[in-house]
Amino acid sequence: MSGNWYTEKQTENFGITMKINKTLHVEQTEWQFLEMAETAEWGNMLFLDGMVMTSQKDEFVYHEMVAHVPLFTHPNPENVLVVGGGDGGVIREVMKHPKVKKATLVDIDGKVIEYSKKYLPEIAGELDNPRVEVIVGDGFMHIAKSENEYDVIMVDSTEPMGPAVDLFTKGFYAGIHKALKEDGLFVAQSDNPWFKADLIKQVQSDVKEIFPITKLYTANIPTYPSGLWCFTIGSKKHDPLDVPAEQFHDIDTKYYTKELHSAAFVLPKFVKDLAGE
Amino acid sequence: MSGNWYTEKQTENFGITMKINKTLHVEQTEWQFLEMAETAEWGNMLFLDGMVMTSQKDEFVYHEMVAHVPLFTHPNPENVLVVGGGDGGVIREVMKHPKVKKATLVDIDGKVIEYSKKYLPEIAGELDNPRVEVIVGDGFMHIAKSENEYDVIMVDSTEPMGPAVDLFTKGFYAGIHKALKEDGLFVAQSDNPWFKADLIKQVQSDVKEIFPITKLYTANIPTYPSGLWCFTIGSKKHDPLDVPAEQFHDIDTKYYTKELHSAAFVLPKFVKDLAGE
Repeated sequence: MSGNWYTEKQTENFGITMKINKTLHVEQTEWQFLEMAETAEWGNMLFLDGMVMTSQKDEFVYHEMVAHVPLFTHPNPENVLVVGGGDGGVIREVMKHPKVKKATLVDIDGKVIEYSKKYLPEIAGELDNPRVEVIVGDGFMHIAKSENEYDVIMVDSTEPMGPAVDLFTKGFYAGIHKALKEDGLFVAQSDNPWFKADLIKQVQSDVKEIFPITKLYTANIPTYPSGLWCFTIGSKKHDPLDVPAEQFHDIDTKYYTKELHSAAFVLPKFVKDLAGE
Repeated sequence: MSGNWYTEKQTENFGITMKINKTLHVEQTEWQFLEMAETAEWGNMLFLDGMVMTSQKDEFVYHEMVAHVPLFTHPNPENVLVVGGGDGGVIREVMKHPKVKKATLVDIDGKVIEYSKKYLPEIAGELDNPRVEVIVGDGFMHIAKSENEYDVIMVDSTEPMGPAVDLFTKGFYAGIHKALKEDGLFVAQSDNPWFKADLIKQVQSDVKEIFPITKLYTANIPTYPSGLWCFTIGSKKHDPLDVPAEQFHDIDTKYYTKELHSAAFVLPKFVKDLAGE
């Protein structure tokens, strides 16, 4: 990558391209092709199998929106599980919630954790927090053996290919349902409505079969395909659009606000149609 | 462009790249370098000075959001002016409002109109509507000589370089104020908060000096820089966030909904800060 431009083809016919100042690390791990590079526009950036995972400049959007929407929806999120998310960004946001007593991170690829700590320290910094347990292992299996354990589960996966393919199945959502306490809820990143309309429809329909409250929300992430990223929430009891005002507390963010918490669920017409709303 | 990939550098260090099936037209007009191409991902696409202006696949977002937010904010938008917008997309959306008796389009470049009619017919189709007057001319001068005339003005300009540079000045906003009736309002596209933060701050601050109600809203446009596009509204009287429910009527859209009308004003924290809210 060094001294050159890197292009991620987000579809067969469209992509983003960026100047690379310097390649920091390249490795075929047991699970995926990992590249860490210093980019001129976005700061240090992590790529897995050629796809942008996170960058220093825009990472806050994804991490804040995955974490704070479900955490403020649950009245008492004491025990939290993050599946994937080895860069540590979701954990950093989770740690901003004093009600969280314990957060477990299960990422299949220890190398992602290792090189995020090295090259993305302001993202990975809270992985050493004493309230955090880091497990290098299979998130699908971890969920499968958990029962009535978590208040909130966050699925911070790559796209449904490679090691993440199991994380987009109905069996996985059923496992999440079992792993959650009786008033638990989960969120999963669900790609974008411009290039992956069928995936969004499928996830919404699968989650709806299992969770009484299923909703879609979006955020703008400039380095992700189409810039409009979707998140699916599935909840047993608590409705993200019916959060008591006193449940919100002040929090230091660059994207999330309590007003945006609700507004993010107001979807463009064509996305609403995909979600079956 | 034929049989090749075209890259638009949105910043010095970042861009989008897309496969071109076929170049349809290339011309240095009196005002700008015009290219029309058939792309594999986005359908036919118009470029001016190398920048994406509109595409068949995602044009609906921009055109709906420029038109419907101000038109539903005004109780009786009879006389409407569009500055720029030679592709006709904004006019097409304006024509969905039966209250509009007349819409005037003033674009400086007749070639944009000509080739949009030829290669983007579903965008330009309403330019021949009898309620529409098309003027090939200088929007700045048209505004300067108008007084107490329009209910709603929409500024659908290119970025602040080339022929559009005058359209991002305080003098232009003062001219708009004079050209509007006593309860008139205007909207202008205001670029994106990721790469053009200073521009957004400047426009907000300039418009606030002239209009008592100044607000920013956003929409996701995947082929525009960062995918998060901003629009500035300046209004003498009517507040876009205080629209009587009965003022909304059913309208055929793919992005705009009356719920999104309000939600689009709920800004991410860092954008809110730029807007000085």
